[in-house]
Amino acid sequence: MELGMHTLTQGRGLLFGGDYNPEQWPEHVWAQDAELMRAAGVNLVTVGVFSWARIEPEPGARDFAWLDKVLDLMAANGIAVDLATPTASPPPWLGHRWPQTLPVDESGHRLWYGSRNQFCPSSPIYRERALALVTDLADRYANHPALALWHVGNEYGQICHCDESVAAFRTWLQARYGDLATLNEAWGTTFWSQHYSDWAEIVTPRRAPYLHNPAQLLDWRRFCSDALLDHFRAERDVLRERTPGTPVTTNFMGLFKPVDSWAWAREEDVVSNDWYPDPGDPLSPARTALTHDLMRGLAGGRPWLLMEQATGAVNWRPHNLPKPPGRLRLESLQALARGADGLCYFQWRASRFGAERFHSAMVPHAGADTRLHAEVRAHGQELRRLASVAGTPVPARVAMVFGWDSWWALEERGRPSDRINAVDQLLSYYVPFWERGVAVDVVPPGADLSAYALVVAPNLFLIADEDAAALTAYARGGGVLVVGPFSGVVDPRAQIRTGRFPAPLREVLGVAGEEWWPAPDGPVRCRWSGGSEFAAHTWTELVAAEGAETVAEFAEGDLAGRPAVLRHAFGDGSAWYVATMPDESALAALAGRVLADAGVEGVLPDLPAGVEAVRRGDVLFLLNHGAATVRVPLPGPSDDLLTGSPAEGHVTLAPRAVAAVRPRVHAQPGDHLA
Amino acid sequence: MELGMHTLTQGRGLLFGGDYNPEQWPEHVWAQDAELMRAAGVNLVTVGVFSWARIEPEPGARDFAWLDKVLDLMAANGIAVDLATPTASPPPWLGHRWPQTLPVDESGHRLWYGSRNQFCPSSPIYRERALALVTDLADRYANHPALALWHVGNEYGQICHCDESVAAFRTWLQARYGDLATLNEAWGTTFWSQHYSDWAEIVTPRRAPYLHNPAQLLDWRRFCSDALLDHFRAERDVLRERTPGTPVTTNFMGLFKPVDSWAWAREEDVVSNDWYPDPGDPLSPARTALTHDLMRGLAGGRPWLLMEQATGAVNWRPHNLPKPPGRLRLESLQALARGADGLCYFQWRASRFGAERFHSAMVPHAGADTRLHAEVRAHGQELRRLASVAGTPVPARVAMVFGWDSWWALEERGRPSDRINAVDQLLSYYVPFWERGVAVDVVPPGADLSAYALVVAPNLFLIADEDAAALTAYARGGGVLVVGPFSGVVDPRAQIRTGRFPAPLREVLGVAGEEWWPAPDGPVRCRWSGGSEFAAHTWTELVAAEGAETVAEFAEGDLAGRPAVLRHAFGDGSAWYVATMPDESALAALAGRVLADAGVEGVLPDLPAGVEAVRRGDVLFLLNHGAATVRVPLPGPSDDLLTGSPAEGHVTLAPRAVAAVRPRVHAQPGDHLA
Amino acid sequence: MELGMHTLTQGRGLLFGGDYNPEQWPEHVWAQDAELMRAAGVNLVTVGVFSWARIEPEPGARDFAWLDKVLDLMAANGIAVDLATPTASPPPWLGHRWPQTLPVDESGHRLWYGSRNQFCPSSPIYRERALALVTDLADRYANHPALALWHVGNEYGQICHCDESVAAFRTWLQARYGDLATLNEAWGTTFWSQHYSDWAEIVTPRRAPYLHNPAQLLDWRRFCSDALLDHFRAERDVLRERTPGTPVTTNFMGLFKPVDSWAWAREEDVVSNDWYPDPGDPLSPARTALTHDLMRGLAGGRPWLLMEQATGAVNWRPHNLPKPPGRLRLESLQALARGADGLCYFQWRASRFGAERFHSAMVPHAGADTRLHAEVRAHGQELRRLASVAGTPVPARVAMVFGWDSWWALEERGRPSDRINAVDQLLSYYVPFWERGVAVDVVPPGADLSAYALVVAPNLFLIADEDAAALTAYARGGGVLVVGPFSGVVDPRAQIRTGRFPAPLREVLGVAGEEWWPAPDGPVRCRWSGGSEFAAHTWTELVAAEGAETVAEFAEGDLAGRPAVLRHAFGDGSAWYVATMPDESALAALAGRVLADAGVEGVLPDLPAGVEAVRRGDVLFLLNHGAATVRVPLPGPSDDLLTGSPAEGHVTLAPRAVAAVRPRVHAQPGDHLA
Repeated sequence: MELGMHTLTQGRGLLFGGDYNPEQWPEHVWAQDAELMRAAGVNLVTVGVFSWARIEPEPGARDFAWLDKVLDLMAANGIAVDLATPTASPPPWLGHRWPQTLPVDESGHRLWYGSRNQFCPSSPIYRERALALVTDLADRYANHPALALWHVGNEYGQICHCDESVAAFRTWLQARYGDLATLNEAWGTTFWSQHYSDWAEIVTPRRAPYLHNPAQLLDWRRFCSDALLDHFRAERDVLRERTPGTPVTTNFMGLFKPVDSWAWAREEDVVSNDWYPDPGDPLSPARTALTHDLMRGLAGGRPWLLMEQATGAVNWRPHNLPKPPGRLRLESLQALARGADGLCYFQWRASRFGAERFHSAMVPHAGADTRLHAEVRAHGQELRRLASVAGTPVPARVAMVFGWDSWWALEERGRPSDRINAVDQLLSYYVPFWERGVAVDVVPPGADLSAYALVVAPNLFLIADEDAAALTAYARGGGVLVVGPFSGVVDPRAQIRTGRFPAPLREVLGVAGEEWWPAPDGPVRCRWSGGSEFAAHTWTELVAAEGAETVAEFAEGDLAGRPAVLRHAFGDGSAWYVATMPDESALAALAGRVLADAGVEGVLPDLPAGVEAVRRGDVLFLLNHGAATVRVPLPGPSDDLLTGSPAEGHVTLAPRAVAAVRPRVHAQPGDHLA
Repeated sequence: MELGMHTLTQGRGLLFGGDYNPEQWPEHVWAQDAELMRAAGVNLVTVGVFSWARIEPEPGARDFAWLDKVLDLMAANGIAVDLATPTASPPPWLGHRWPQTLPVDESGHRLWYGSRNQFCPSSPIYRERALALVTDLADRYANHPALALWHVGNEYGQICHCDESVAAFRTWLQARYGDLATLNEAWGTTFWSQHYSDWAEIVTPRRAPYLHNPAQLLDWRRFCSDALLDHFRAERDVLRERTPGTPVTTNFMGLFKPVDSWAWAREEDVVSNDWYPDPGDPLSPARTALTHDLMRGLAGGRPWLLMEQATGAVNWRPHNLPKPPGRLRLESLQALARGADGLCYFQWRASRFGAERFHSAMVPHAGADTRLHAEVRAHGQELRRLASVAGTPVPARVAMVFGWDSWWALEERGRPSDRINAVDQLLSYYVPFWERGVAVDVVPPGADLSAYALVVAPNLFLIADEDAAALTAYARGGGVLVVGPFSGVVDPRAQIRTGRFPAPLREVLGVAGEEWWPAPDGPVRCRWSGGSEFAAHTWTELVAAEGAETVAEFAEGDLAGRPAVLRHAFGDGSAWYVATMPDESALAALAGRVLADAGVEGVLPDLPAGVEAVRRGDVLFLLNHGAATVRVPLPGPSDDLLTGSPAEGHVTLAPRAVAAVRPRVHAQPGDHLA
Repeated sequence: MELGMHTLTQGRGLLFGGDYNPEQWPEHVWAQDAELMRAAGVNLVTVGVFSWARIEPEPGARDFAWLDKVLDLMAANGIAVDLATPTASPPPWLGHRWPQTLPVDESGHRLWYGSRNQFCPSSPIYRERALALVTDLADRYANHPALALWHVGNEYGQICHCDESVAAFRTWLQARYGDLATLNEAWGTTFWSQHYSDWAEIVTPRRAPYLHNPAQLLDWRRFCSDALLDHFRAERDVLRERTPGTPVTTNFMGLFKPVDSWAWAREEDVVSNDWYPDPGDPLSPARTALTHDLMRGLAGGRPWLLMEQATGAVNWRPHNLPKPPGRLRLESLQALARGADGLCYFQWRASRFGAERFHSAMVPHAGADTRLHAEVRAHGQELRRLASVAGTPVPARVAMVFGWDSWWALEERGRPSDRINAVDQLLSYYVPFWERGVAVDVVPPGADLSAYALVVAPNLFLIADEDAAALTAYARGGGVLVVGPFSGVVDPRAQIRTGRFPAPLREVLGVAGEEWWPAPDGPVRCRWSGGSEFAAHTWTELVAAEGAETVAEFAEGDLAGRPAVLRHAFGDGSAWYVATMPDESALAALAGRVLADAGVEGVLPDLPAGVEAVRRGDVLFLLNHGAATVRVPLPGPSDDLLTGSPAEGHVTLAPRAVAAVRPRVHAQPGDHLA
């Protein structure tokens, strides 16, 4: 059987724990740690993420003795170890002896050690040193009973413009384009006299007088992701060879631009994520749900691991709000409800020193007899009540399409407006579904859409022919497709698809567009065909219906009377195009219409504001993110797994409260999709 | 006869066209282009601006075959070519093989290729390579029938701090100052221990711990403009030698700080400008009018060429508003009305790739059967109705003085307030004249002022003795002179003119100033001598009347009761000094007073708000920039050249509409000055 | 007897003058200067601050002739000279011939000459050249009758990351830590794999991918201050050896972060300061008073010298407001009232050239027959009436603790909130005392507190064990102690003090804190135990009383009902802890309570708003910073030294007016403390 989260949860149940950095503490603290961990129900700790210098204090040396003790201690306490390859942060000696391993920014500034992550992804010396260490680490702990998971590197995202990176970029481009003529054509180098006459002329997009070539930038972003992925694979292969039964992961950071997570997820056994919602962001609950859904998508619908979250405040925002009582549990259970089978924290014990000494932890500076640690312990303990959730899926009949290529291509300088951004578009379309308790899968362009009743593409600025064809086939075959503005604009070389837009989606959408019209500041009045008005903003387009019906039109300005939202009955399905950016309430109304079109409903009708509802397996999770106590009606007699009590008719949820209810008469298979 | 715009318009009439970059398209598109151009009335295209790498794909190679075809095609279709020396953007091979040709910023960062404009203006290798190419280009096309105009480089403005630039700066300074003692005195190097003991010590104003020497900065700006001009002249001389009958131009960018356009204009045969009004800027119509008037001034009152404008949105602002229907024509005719004899666009066909692929064009991505191209074609066609305008002057009895030296000197750090800026001052004084339909010439310091009834110097921070004397003589001889605040402050070495200010203008203004008093945030109440109040802002001065009468005084604060605006009866004329920054309506009132003083009136009384009125030759242009339909009374029976219909009593102008009316009984010479 | 301000004021009375830069002017101006100085009562001028290049126009040359003349002229006119070592700004030749003397910023950019201050503090060549010059200067003028004071360098604050600075930093660290293991432990290099295996690996905190190690940053700030101090000492030692009877100073810049003024002040004979209140800052009078009090503290309670102030506007803010009539005198007398025995200006005569040509001066560009110079002269003359103030102390029973180490440690990135800043905290606590006319001494951590009835520590983020013990002993012994939030957090290695906070102050404060809770935007309602409410902001903490009584509690949010302000009866005294940031009026109320606790009152009851009252010796200074004319009741029959008239019952103060009243019946010693 394939490796995955189940490899970890088998026999352990849901995972609970965090990053454990015992090298920061004297040994007498370790024993206290183990005892506190057991009391809190910790069953997984990540060890060694930043231990390169501790293991290899000078080039070629090895000091594993301390790590042996740590792993033995964990094993003795029944705590599994997620062992990290400590290659995210090389020791100072690497940069000192081999300055060419230090990264260089686009302006030519070398970035020094004394912080973290100071390596060039394309450095042969870094690669060699890292793999030598990983090999020894794997050899030493391959059979250690505590070893359960490999954690390669940490939060990959480094970028480098040094000469070695330039050479690697050229090699990557040679592999992509074969010959220079093809590259010149793909990059459109007849523009601005950019023709390359020799591979040796090509450099990374270093500081330049003005705008860079957008195709070069797009390939550069692809290369940066691939160069890191190549290093990840090299480490992974060392591990797989030595421990074929131990899954390998690396921790993502949500919708993180530098790495194409779709490509990365294919290369790892377990999808894991670091996620730090901002308590000061009112959109945080929906943004977090979206991120969790992305992780589930990256895992192919299977469970994933929340590798890092905070018990309280972080330290890296300008002003770091704490998590008030209950929020730690609320946010952790939200991840569980959306498919996580493990809930871990950065970190176990708050550091006394270093740049993150003000980051909250499971054991705070003030000690274990604190409000915060009490919540940690209670949360760890109650997870046992939810053990049956492990391994179960979160069924969804709606998919949202999101891809890194399009994101990268969209957000370069020199476009109609820098106010249209891929993630904001995605989130704005996601929110109304989340508010209604409609589960959404996040899928990549080109995904198999056959299982979905509704597919939403909030923005597909860049789209490949085959992906456009797949969307067209999907609607023709009976699906409901929704496409947001400024889609279908460029091909995978970032070249404009000429003619009426959105060129490759024009047939399915029944629309012919002439011009993108960024809007002046302030709202743009629009009118539904029924007569009621709504407000859009920022972006409008000059389009004509070409088979589609106009569902809403612009109601003011030079576009007055022209289509703003269109619906095209197409084949056995339908396709919607939104030629503007409707405000929040208009997007909610639109979501209602397309859901009706697709025959999809939320898990519960009439959810109170602020309440997130999601069904995982046969358990309905209700999470109150609002500031008011609310009463949520239930469809029938149920049991609340968290309280162990029956829930008749409804549950009452105080702010930050959570219910996990299971129908007393089990639902029939498929019912949860209704 | 001297070369000029007339060389181009002879036999062609008004020019219409744009940048044409056929190298971005397969040849089968070229034929379509020619056909579409003819249909749209295009008679001039600019070719080759970014073709260096296409012509010289590797060092020393030449590929002219494609360009031969393009010029032949244009000739065959009766379209003249503005042929560019493609030296604005060297190919990657130049920077790769000779990195010393790449520019270096003030911090020492090298700027790479992959964008455009990456050359050091003082690089001998760049110069050598550029001239070799220009020579071959000129030799090849000297006798081509399509060749009508040379377009040298593009939008000059590069700055470089490399060692070769340092050497060139030293040479320039040696020419200016002769010996080091004179330089030390001019720069005031006794301040902050900056004495230079050897020419070799002098560097460009590279990154430093704190404020730079302002005299060094001023000379640096002069040098940067001159270094580019020197390169321009070198290319021009190659062209002039080979094609003495073909005029030479390079395209300005309006009030563009890096190049002293007064000096440049003297070196070219045709003044041309690139201008992109921001549709989101409410001051855009007046700002544009001012810029056009500057171009007319640079051309010595003769016609000029609008080399680049946009048909719709540009792509380089953060948020790029489109031009709604009618605005393309409105803005283009505005240039015509203010002296342009050619109306061109960047660019003919919208690029599919490159950093400007979202810049609008004459043929948009969506094709020629579009709203936008229809407007282009209609506009091109209707220009034939205005053919008689070509070559006619825009008479003006008001001059505004503006110079680059003063602009440069004013806007350095370390001055009383960074809220007083040369262009803002100029525009604020220009607006009320524009609103009244009073034509204004923009002239340099030292210009012959004898033809003007009113001369306004909104700010002359730096003024030379002889220029101050000229202004004094002008007023003494009967002219009306208006001088704005913070004038007469420094001499051409940026050294303070001590004593009461504005020192060299003190006699003519009858004013003695002691202190510049930047004002706290918010308005400053002032009072006209008649008793009514107005608001000023940002800037006040402590001055005393010394012969002048106080026209307005400050009405609050520590300056209450002291003069804010003064008028000095001087010789046969009068001189006004404005010791503050009156708000818009107060400047309008002031304009009314000084116009009355000078006996100047607008071309039409009581213009509706938003309507621009300007007379060119015997044609009165009325342009409605406002949002309302207005009725404009006419002085007598006229014909509208655009409609071909009579206009009796008045014309009605919808928003964005234009009328070009000619009195049915021709005015007597000189009448238009009344 | 020790050297000090008395060395200067003996026989001269209060000092009055400014920076004098005759090298900027032809000699014929010098004689005028001397005459004007005499008329204005000038008795001290600072000469030579930026004269390195004038004295040493090329390496090794010496030109003292001009300086001889200047000093002779001053001597002949009875004006003492504060002679500068001109080493703040090396000539261009130094950087040209020895580029390694030029400073390098954290990104590796070299900073060039052409401005000022371009030297690396750790450069051996700079040191050698500077000392050679200082030696010759001292030898030449040791016995000159004009020499009264040495002014070493100017406004020290340079930072450099060059390789020589790296080497010096390593040496400094070796001296501090002895061996590398101790450094590794102090810096906590087990965090993020930062272990150093060789001294040679250590660099300054150069540009890095992310947050730097905070202990490294703290040591870096200490080193930067020490490296400059080391250079200062080297120059000072040259001077002391040659002129043992002449005091030495260098000019501070108030609460200036780069140099630890407590350490520096110990090394100089006279404390001097440059201070430029912003006329646009409403907090300017209090901020200035605080700065003056710091200077008095640095001088150990003895008189100090206001080395630089402006007569009007400065030139280095973005928008520079002037000083309206009276403000020059008001601000200068404020310094006198708070302990200054000398009132000097930058500069005597306004420069015609250079980056500071728009800085106001004692003789403005407009000449000596001006409003501004008249105020200068009047102020200089009236100082004679205040001669008796010289040498007298400003008695204070309140101390505020402030230290650079804590400031540096607090304000690094990666903390709970960047909205809590050391100086803002200090000022917010200072304001209510200043408003009540309560004199405050600013003292360093570890100061002798026995003379104070009340000690306030607005923030002591970093605190050493012994300093915490001293505060504890102070309260135990009967003192009243007030500690602001986020105190007691780290030790001198910037490592967190674990356990309940504020760890080392927990006993004295009777408080146990668990978590720092930065607050959402907007006010946080709090409630005094008496029931009335007040508002706090930005910062809250989760603390429990542990012996202390709760004086105020939070009244909303998750902390509602928990302590916000606590008072602990401790030993013979009491200790207050403020776990939030009360707004201005709440801090005023708090000040009232703690003053009552300590039995301290202001010099006058019921001061009108805007009036500053401070007693120096037996003279009561009343300074009206407000916009209204006010009447201030006096305690008894007095004489106003400034008017020479009796002041019965009260004085009336127009805006910007000052009174300096002495009780007609002399107060008994100690009365002024009541």
